[in-house]
Amino acid sequence: MFETSRPLRFGQCDPAGIAYFPSYIDMLVGVTEDFFAHIGAPWTVLIPERRIGVPTVRLDATFVKPAFHGDRLDFTLRVTGVGRSSLDFAHRVSVGGDTVWTACQRLVATSLETHRPIAWPDDIRTNLYHHLEINDAQGPAT
Amino acid sequence: MFETSRPLRFGQCDPAGIAYFPSYIDMLVGVTEDFFAHIGAPWTVLIPERRIGVPTVRLDATFVKPAFHGDRLDFTLRVTGVGRSSLDFAHRVSVGGDTVWTACQRLVATSLETHRPIAWPDDIRTNLYHHLEINDAQGPAT
Amino acid sequence: MFETSRPLRFGQCDPAGIAYFPSYIDMLVGVTEDFFAHIGAPWTVLIPERRIGVPTVRLDATFVKPAFHGDRLDFTLRVTGVGRSSLDFAHRVSVGGDTVWTACQRLVATSLETHRPIAWPDDIRTNLYHHLEINDAQGPAT
Amino acid sequence: MFETSRPLRFGQCDPAGIAYFPSYIDMLVGVTEDFFAHIGAPWTVLIPERRIGVPTVRLDATFVKPAFHGDRLDFTLRVTGVGRSSLDFAHRVSVGGDTVWTACQRLVATSLETHRPIAWPDDIRTNLYHHLEINDAQGPAT
Repeated sequence: MFETSRPLRFGQCDPAGIAYFPSYIDMLVGVTEDFFAHIGAPWTVLIPERRIGVPTVRLDATFVKPAFHGDRLDFTLRVTGVGRSSLDFAHRVSVGGDTVWTACQRLVATSLETHRPIAWPDDIRTNLYHHLEINDAQGPAT
Repeated sequence: MFETSRPLRFGQCDPAGIAYFPSYIDMLVGVTEDFFAHIGAPWTVLIPERRIGVPTVRLDATFVKPAFHGDRLDFTLRVTGVGRSSLDFAHRVSVGGDTVWTACQRLVATSLETHRPIAWPDDIRTNLYHHLEINDAQGPAT
Repeated sequence: MFETSRPLRFGQCDPAGIAYFPSYIDMLVGVTEDFFAHIGAPWTVLIPERRIGVPTVRLDATFVKPAFHGDRLDFTLRVTGVGRSSLDFAHRVSVGGDTVWTACQRLVATSLETHRPIAWPDDIRTNLYHHLEINDAQGPAT
Repeated sequence: MFETSRPLRFGQCDPAGIAYFPSYIDMLVGVTEDFFAHIGAPWTVLIPERRIGVPTVRLDATFVKPAFHGDRLDFTLRVTGVGRSSLDFAHRVSVGGDTVWTACQRLVATSLETHRPIAWPDDIRTNLYHHLEINDAQGPAT
């Protein structure tokens, strides 16, 4: 489990006075970026040097309640699956312990030359496995 | 069916040279905003005067292939369900006829005073029904 | 003179109910991008093929009055100077004929390999000169 | 002097591989927001409760050299002037001690009911004065 927090800023809120949800998605990419740095695979090396991208191919998000300007958003990222090229995250975002939104995200390791999927390099795969959380009820992702 | 197009701009692309997907979601909100204006319920009246918000409570998006800087993104919005407070859209975004991403989106009419769901006002409901597309295979949303 | 318009969208407004000014700057880059396409130097060729960037090195912006969600922003771009590597624009943004903000912007042609200034290629320079507006009071940029 | 830092994230960079400058301006608003919280005038109270906005009326920015994905941006904010309604900041943004961009910004205290300037409330003015830096060479702002 990887945890980080972000303040909900003025510029991320809308005229209705609550979080503008596309700003949430932008924040989520930042959280994902922090996770990759945390496991020793920073995008600043991955993208320009190793020429590997990690585009999102699926995002299922549920917005439970609004968050307001000034709220502290607590992000929890769980690795729920590691495939040959794919990677599944379960995200939970809460304010003061209350869930405000959740998302399931699938990324795919991709060659930046061909934009086609590639197998995770061994060093990254190993680190991803270390963070894989097995849910007894459903088993590992296949 | 509601259709509109957007160029994919420099500022919406990332260092991998392709669309930054949170920018897609920002564009999608703009398309949704255009749809509401198209059916005679512009947000510029809805939000400040009628004090009704239309937050997204669910977004399931699938990114099929990358789009590149300069691509023309063709958006197709279908109304697939109208509930008491809810509204379901099916979005398809294509470049030159090829689907690049799709999304199912659920919005909910909400009081901006209480941030709780309210029934669609009759005038809006009537116009939403006019755009509701019944898929024989699944029937109308309930 | 190059002219284009943009609606001020929900997602570009802030909790104070007016345009979020960093969104203006993002729009300005899009207008600049459109200008380059208009003079036959689209960034989709300039950046990936010719490996020339046009970073902004100076922006002086004055925000005269607020714009509101739903306003149509009319952009006017004037070329006020063409140097060896530099390019000066005067922007005016108005709503219904009233100026809401103005900006002077200087860009510099830059090699994307070295990130250092380069001379404008002849074909682009020629087209920029065609759009250069001489203000008798101050003469051409030097 | 108020100091804070921000990482330059993937989503803030452009296809040329460097910071997208409108993202800088968005970050600057966040730094300004942090400064107001630091002096005891958080925007989360100022805007919804006291109904005071602090729109930017002038921004003069100079971009000296590019910053790259992964750079740590160190922001320094100096208060250079406090008028009846106005407030002047001098910003410096550096990477590893090298200035990458600077900006002079003027904000104006504004009624959110009328969108017209108002005098700074005494409590805020007092705190702003505490941070005012007098430059002997030019004297205080008038």
